[in-house]
Amino acid sequence: MTNFVNTPWTDRFASRTEGMTSSAIRELLKLTADPEVISFAGGLPAPDVFPLEQIDAACRKVIAEQGKSALQYSTTEGYLPLREMLCRHMERYGVKVTPANVLVTSGSQQALDLIGKLMINSGDRILTEAPTYLGALQAWSGYRARYLTVPLDDEGLQTDLLEAQLRSGPKFLYILPNFHNPGGTTLPLERRRRLVELASHYGTPILEDDPYGQLRYEGEHLPTLVEIDAEFNGAAAAEHPFRGGVMYLGTLSKTLAPGLRIGWVVAPEAVIFRLVQMKQGADLHTATFTQMVAYEAAHGGFLDRHVKRIREVYGERRDAMLAALERHMPPGCHWTRPQGGLFLWATLPEGLDSGKLIHEALQQKVAFVPGASFFPLGGGQRSMRLNFSYCNPEMIQEGVRRLGAVIERHLAPKMVAVP
Amino acid sequence: MTNFVNTPWTDRFASRTEGMTSSAIRELLKLTADPEVISFAGGLPAPDVFPLEQIDAACRKVIAEQGKSALQYSTTEGYLPLREMLCRHMERYGVKVTPANVLVTSGSQQALDLIGKLMINSGDRILTEAPTYLGALQAWSGYRARYLTVPLDDEGLQTDLLEAQLRSGPKFLYILPNFHNPGGTTLPLERRRRLVELASHYGTPILEDDPYGQLRYEGEHLPTLVEIDAEFNGAAAAEHPFRGGVMYLGTLSKTLAPGLRIGWVVAPEAVIFRLVQMKQGADLHTATFTQMVAYEAAHGGFLDRHVKRIREVYGERRDAMLAALERHMPPGCHWTRPQGGLFLWATLPEGLDSGKLIHEALQQKVAFVPGASFFPLGGGQRSMRLNFSYCNPEMIQEGVRRLGAVIERHLAPKMVAVP
Repeated sequence: MTNFVNTPWTDRFASRTEGMTSSAIRELLKLTADPEVISFAGGLPAPDVFPLEQIDAACRKVIAEQGKSALQYSTTEGYLPLREMLCRHMERYGVKVTPANVLVTSGSQQALDLIGKLMINSGDRILTEAPTYLGALQAWSGYRARYLTVPLDDEGLQTDLLEAQLRSGPKFLYILPNFHNPGGTTLPLERRRRLVELASHYGTPILEDDPYGQLRYEGEHLPTLVEIDAEFNGAAAAEHPFRGGVMYLGTLSKTLAPGLRIGWVVAPEAVIFRLVQMKQGADLHTATFTQMVAYEAAHGGFLDRHVKRIREVYGERRDAMLAALERHMPPGCHWTRPQGGLFLWATLPEGLDSGKLIHEALQQKVAFVPGASFFPLGGGQRSMRLNFSYCNPEMIQEGVRRLGAVIERHLAPKMVAVP
Repeated sequence: MTNFVNTPWTDRFASRTEGMTSSAIRELLKLTADPEVISFAGGLPAPDVFPLEQIDAACRKVIAEQGKSALQYSTTEGYLPLREMLCRHMERYGVKVTPANVLVTSGSQQALDLIGKLMINSGDRILTEAPTYLGALQAWSGYRARYLTVPLDDEGLQTDLLEAQLRSGPKFLYILPNFHNPGGTTLPLERRRRLVELASHYGTPILEDDPYGQLRYEGEHLPTLVEIDAEFNGAAAAEHPFRGGVMYLGTLSKTLAPGLRIGWVVAPEAVIFRLVQMKQGADLHTATFTQMVAYEAAHGGFLDRHVKRIREVYGERRDAMLAALERHMPPGCHWTRPQGGLFLWATLPEGLDSGKLIHEALQQKVAFVPGASFFPLGGGQRSMRLNFSYCNPEMIQEGVRRLGAVIERHLAPKMVAVP
């Protein structure tokens, strides 16, 4: 840490901030500001697919028709037409909820923070996948969470290793079943059912984070955990009332635009009531203007059409990255083949450490995130997260070539040393 | 609390949420949604003064010229041109800071929350004014703060009562020197100097909250505490480097528009470094789009011109409320005469309780916030907060008439009972 001048403020930090370090990813992203670096490090949507015209039209409409409301304070729960739209969205996912089950948040990162504040006492153990979403660890470290983990394989969380962890009584289970960040994995239907069944048996609440669910490039949509939980209620498949064992996090960041900061939580009414209290203290409400603009831009079928276009663009980029990896990665490397989302997860041959490789990679103008960042209890040194949504296919091809060469060089001395 | 269905989530709330109740003000505001109610309860800017054309033009410019950046993720610290603009603003307030001293927040409510997360351990005592801003208490209750208080008189914090409280070692002192919410008071220069001197002597950091500082309707601008603190550094008056004993909170909510949710903190670099970590976990960053739109709308002199117009409108409304109070309030009531801001503070005759009066007031279609809400350690039953920015002069006149009649009725039986 930089050597700052001391002030009366600086020796009084709360103990919860001890050992808290800045996000490895965000610090790394600063290095990748160099325009010559081909970055697979961020989790950025491609700006080429941002619906500028639609947002422009939405801004004009909102200001012309509801300008005074759009610039005023508004309710903590969120803009009602937006929450109603999100209910209709959830219904297509097989779950019946009302606006009383929905809280609009300032990105789904805020939902993670509010849930942490609501649920986590110092020392509580949260059960996560290993690896897991770094932002969740960041949000919860402020509440002094501890962790239990279940490892991923190429199909996601290994449900056969889950029961032992559930037995030790975690506060809740946090999981990304679709197109995992960072793992790129998708949990098969059988594992989803088994997971919900086990969690239900042990009374463990599930927090389902689904930022990428609509971005599927192959295969069939799988039911969300919140839907499977609703099925357990015994209602007919056509009308699953929300049951509340699973809370669901969604976001418009990957389908509309992250710069608007619109996410949402679906939760039991009693939890929403408490989360609203937390959010009142945290930021009063999410910007009225961006909520209204997001609603105007998204509703009435536009978002579905737009998501189709994003799928085409990102699907092509995923294919480009898979092809480039086949071509340029040395033997002994392997990687996940994501059915959707923004990321894949590559593992290097035995003996290599992606955390050491990153510096040489940056010299060669290619960036990734070392895998160890995503493990709350350590591990992952041989792995890395590669984003394929941000760069176009040509850049992907060139970036993977550079990356393959860096890895190759690190392998070479070993091969020489072993006659 | 409503009787909600239990779920695995609902019996697992963190202990920090015990006894936390929804904001009295926000619950009250729901009742005032009735369009016939004349509400002095909110802290709402007048929508008539929102600069719709300027925001409209700013949106178009941002989307046309920087649309892809505006809709993308951005840095946690905030949009650099906006932070540079805020530095220039602070320089006019007599304080030299760099963008490294400025963090853009999602309204200044978020700054209060992040500072709470950074500074407050369970049980830490925060020194506030009594009454004080309710949103600060709400933000900090989640971190289990306790409170010490210094009472206000008609000139604000009573500095002759301050030293005893500083001696007992509060974590920091939170104060609103200008046009106090809810008190409507303005701390005179002599008290400002004494306060900074005392806090400095006891090593107590000061958090200066200044949402209304530019909205002065009479008298001369007084130096901010952060400026007085800088003077103590001994530098020439023309160039006061930021010293760091005082952190400063500002907002565009009262000068541009609250629906954009743009606030800022000025703090020592080492504190900003930590607050950025907190904000990463809390919401990654404030909406890129609203930051850019706020900058485009505000910079280049527009905000100054616009603030002049707001001053005229609100100054007239303040005068209307003071005149109406003179005319309609029964003998024995008194109230502060704010030099600026949005609120004044009225005190009822002995024996009346504003918390009981509010129900009858709502029946008579007039609303205020009972004073007790603003006291962290109790008190204030005879007082009420009246907002004068939201209603036009005619509504103010009529609302105060209704309020006077309600108070009159409550006084009358007593006067009969005493022969």
